[in-house]
Amino acid sequence: MSFTAPGREQNFVLKHIAEIGELAEHERFAGASDDMVEAIVEGIGQFAAGEFAPINRIGDTVGAKWDDGKVTMPEGFKQAYAQFVEGGWASIDGAEDFGGQGLPYSLSALILETCGAANFAFTLCPMLSFGAIEAIHVHGSDEQKAHYLPNLISGAWTGTMNLTEPQAGSDVGALRSTAEPITEGEHAGKYRIKGQKIYITFGEHDLTDNIVHLVLARTPDAPEGTRGISLFIVPKYHLDADGKPGAPNDVTCVSIEHKIGIHASPTCVMAYGEQDECIGEMIGGEFGGMRAMFTMMNNARINVGSQGVQIAERATQQASQFAAERIQSARAGSGDKAPVAIIEHPDVRRMLLRSKALTQAARALLYYATSSVDRATLGIEGAKSRAEILTPLIKGYGTDIGNEVASIGVQVHGGMGFIEETGAGQHFRDARIAPIYEGTNGIQAADLVGRKLGLDGGEAMATLIADIRSEAREDENLLALANACEDIMRWMASGDASIDDRLAGSYAFMTMLATATCGMLMKKQHRIASAELASGDDPFLKAKLVTTRYYLDHIVPEALGLKAAAMGGADILYRLSSAELAG
Amino acid sequence: MSFTAPGREQNFVLKHIAEIGELAEHERFAGASDDMVEAIVEGIGQFAAGEFAPINRIGDTVGAKWDDGKVTMPEGFKQAYAQFVEGGWASIDGAEDFGGQGLPYSLSALILETCGAANFAFTLCPMLSFGAIEAIHVHGSDEQKAHYLPNLISGAWTGTMNLTEPQAGSDVGALRSTAEPITEGEHAGKYRIKGQKIYITFGEHDLTDNIVHLVLARTPDAPEGTRGISLFIVPKYHLDADGKPGAPNDVTCVSIEHKIGIHASPTCVMAYGEQDECIGEMIGGEFGGMRAMFTMMNNARINVGSQGVQIAERATQQASQFAAERIQSARAGSGDKAPVAIIEHPDVRRMLLRSKALTQAARALLYYATSSVDRATLGIEGAKSRAEILTPLIKGYGTDIGNEVASIGVQVHGGMGFIEETGAGQHFRDARIAPIYEGTNGIQAADLVGRKLGLDGGEAMATLIADIRSEAREDENLLALANACEDIMRWMASGDASIDDRLAGSYAFMTMLATATCGMLMKKQHRIASAELASGDDPFLKAKLVTTRYYLDHIVPEALGLKAAAMGGADILYRLSSAELAG
Repeated sequence: MSFTAPGREQNFVLKHIAEIGELAEHERFAGASDDMVEAIVEGIGQFAAGEFAPINRIGDTVGAKWDDGKVTMPEGFKQAYAQFVEGGWASIDGAEDFGGQGLPYSLSALILETCGAANFAFTLCPMLSFGAIEAIHVHGSDEQKAHYLPNLISGAWTGTMNLTEPQAGSDVGALRSTAEPITEGEHAGKYRIKGQKIYITFGEHDLTDNIVHLVLARTPDAPEGTRGISLFIVPKYHLDADGKPGAPNDVTCVSIEHKIGIHASPTCVMAYGEQDECIGEMIGGEFGGMRAMFTMMNNARINVGSQGVQIAERATQQASQFAAERIQSARAGSGDKAPVAIIEHPDVRRMLLRSKALTQAARALLYYATSSVDRATLGIEGAKSRAEILTPLIKGYGTDIGNEVASIGVQVHGGMGFIEETGAGQHFRDARIAPIYEGTNGIQAADLVGRKLGLDGGEAMATLIADIRSEAREDENLLALANACEDIMRWMASGDASIDDRLAGSYAFMTMLATATCGMLMKKQHRIASAELASGDDPFLKAKLVTTRYYLDHIVPEALGLKAAAMGGADILYRLSSAELAG
Repeated sequence: MSFTAPGREQNFVLKHIAEIGELAEHERFAGASDDMVEAIVEGIGQFAAGEFAPINRIGDTVGAKWDDGKVTMPEGFKQAYAQFVEGGWASIDGAEDFGGQGLPYSLSALILETCGAANFAFTLCPMLSFGAIEAIHVHGSDEQKAHYLPNLISGAWTGTMNLTEPQAGSDVGALRSTAEPITEGEHAGKYRIKGQKIYITFGEHDLTDNIVHLVLARTPDAPEGTRGISLFIVPKYHLDADGKPGAPNDVTCVSIEHKIGIHASPTCVMAYGEQDECIGEMIGGEFGGMRAMFTMMNNARINVGSQGVQIAERATQQASQFAAERIQSARAGSGDKAPVAIIEHPDVRRMLLRSKALTQAARALLYYATSSVDRATLGIEGAKSRAEILTPLIKGYGTDIGNEVASIGVQVHGGMGFIEETGAGQHFRDARIAPIYEGTNGIQAADLVGRKLGLDGGEAMATLIADIRSEAREDENLLALANACEDIMRWMASGDASIDDRLAGSYAFMTMLATATCGMLMKKQHRIASAELASGDDPFLKAKLVTTRYYLDHIVPEALGLKAAAMGGADILYRLSSAELAG
């Protein structure tokens, strides 16, 4: 099935949800003129459909291949990546001082969204680089920035994030990799890195001349836990005197994982310092590792939320095309016995409309989050806190939507959906990683009822709910959901709810608050589309009225059903011992 | 991870939900004594864990292999199947006249459930045979029964169901395979079969000496659509004078599909009569094909519902064991910084408790359905209609639960869940077929609001809802859900709801009615467990109180959130044209 980037939809949401025009009024983002935004939307749409989409399937069937420490990407990937770099798509929001275009993050997120819808697994490569760029830009010395940023921002090199170790999993504080200061010789002032990291996305590949690894490790006598962690820049090849890749560093890709999906994204086991010759330079100061890691990870969580949008968009397109072409069974009750395209059958329509509504809701939430980050960059009041609340919502709810819609996509195909040849299965398998990495969705929910609940003394969340209520107006379902979210918020913030109670209800609350926020954004789009439609027929706006109405009338009420679980408390979870529960 | 059959749970549900003791009071099922039931539960549990579970993984990684028309099962499968036959597990509910044990269907369903939890894909082989046996038993001539039933019932041969053709999909009436009567020669009175069938489960394999295909085809000048379809017995090898497999029939497995999961279940493209020499015998009379097909398929739908229970059980066991062993992160708010097993964390507990509650609910619904079939066999009033309503519920809701729980199972594993080595991914992939085959879940929902809504003039469904309300008593959530189901039922049965309106709300209604029915069954178990616990501590009963309470307090309210979608009507689905919706 072919892929077409949803340019009209993207422009509409950029305009009305991200309010990109307002961002461009600030000098910092003056480059984001209407013309530029539309050119980017159109350009990346054509690029993604033309270069990334055609190699999505070979990415799945052949996948990244490991041989003796080297990872080779499937045919076509190296060329497509080179085109990506040449088109300037890697550098949209990169700092202008280092060759970037200085545009809003909202637009670089648009690049990822569009490319990822075309080729979910491949787009992880630039996505991870963005995290590395951010960390070096915020925490690096002038020299480090000069050495690494130009090539990372252009995309000539890629970057990785090295957090996880086998024994530590999501518990970053438990990591054991070490960094010994070097006091003499050519590397004096740098560190000797040693340790093994797992789940390193694009930790090794053949797309670029160099790979810049950002590695968390412990200096000697560092305190235990997260407080004792520092971050290091570890290039695959040392830079020579001209800043070009020179002698190889002691960094090895030991193996890659055999995964359910995203086969074109090599998930590497990386060994640092097997010959005790791995050299890294500290970034962000000793014990500044966690701070730097959060810099890398915060947008990463939004970007993973974007992956939910990406796979939902792709799966919906595939299912819609299939349903429009597949002829089967007469329409029930029509009196006509001729078989029709299955898109005519009510339950297939329900699946497709649900898929579209969920995809658009997740996209609106994504743009709302990315533009809040941009507003925070501009120092606009309340924007930083809003972005911080939206981050777990888009990551958790967005990726749940990605999975649901990809699964619906399989279902629409019937028996053919289960056959790999059709391609629906790839989306279903690819989607499954997104609720897991960059902090499982359970961790997002914990973040929401932990750190985010108390942000600005609780004002940050209260303000969001007030905004939802304000947009809801006469919409009873959305009002009821906003009120339910407020009830839960108050209960969780009160002394009546223990930490366990909050965590027990966290996932349900995350889904409810995300749905309410999407409800607000869908209501707003409905309002604007209604007004714009007054000036003439427009199929896009007409469809927007239907998807937003469906979301408000069908999906918002579902979330109300979660209130009991959100406020059920932890007691029921702990009535059984661990052994009894596991037994 | 190891697999242990949930024998105590199975016995409890057989006793209190299937009320198997009551069945055994009837002469027809007198063999199902308490001792026999317990022996079967224990015996199949040991067999499944010992023989089927250990080859589940090789079934996935190696899978069934096709070569030049022959399908070879992975190592260990032929031996395990032979053990299955030798143990008598194939023949539990087979007719005693033909070597079967004449026990209730509830017990043969227990065999499938237990074996399928151990090895989901492999168990499709006996499952499909059961359908073929049923069709021959009900519709076959005395001669046909004598020729085929003894070897099918013992398991010495297997059977298949051949419905689907490439152009027809779920629309069986569109099939084009032909059957020409043979008037002369050794096959006089039989038919020459010609056509291609797809999605034929275990259509070819190396487990047995013969395979008995049941094939739908059209006789010359047959009317169009489903009315013109007849059923034919087409053995892989013709029976010789002694009734043993002799000369090969003109039946070829052209290829097998490459699928998302169930790799150990060869999904065959079958060609009948490529040399014009495929001989079959009619069963059930000319144009009796649909009737015979429904005989094959009705229990098949319940058996696919069972697959939801199977994969949910297996995935829950795997996730529970992993969570109990995996040490990661300190318990939030505990003050203790030592990492704990992740099963101690609230959201992991939520995932596991939810998995257990959903699995038990689906199992209760399954046993309620199978025992209703047994009661119908005994001619007990209302049982047949009850079984007919429960069939789409267990198929639709049971398989949705299988998918949800398998996905939760991946999530509990975190990053390791996405790595195939862990095994959680296999369950996730295997589970995905069950909502599709034997009538997609959308078709189940259509059946519910179509044929089943009006059964016995609407009395059948009203009686079920009355039973739910009666068991609910003071349980407000369950009462509210029962009332909501009644509202929907009345609206759908009224002139206010068009066929499209009913179909538009069918899936939501199916989930609601299934949840309410499970709520009733969970409430009943809660009541019985409470009473039994009075006579002494029992970890199983204690756990049962918790899972049933969780279902009633957390999952039942969720289903209430679907009422808006159930009664939303079809208008929203048809505001866009097909082209607008697909575009």
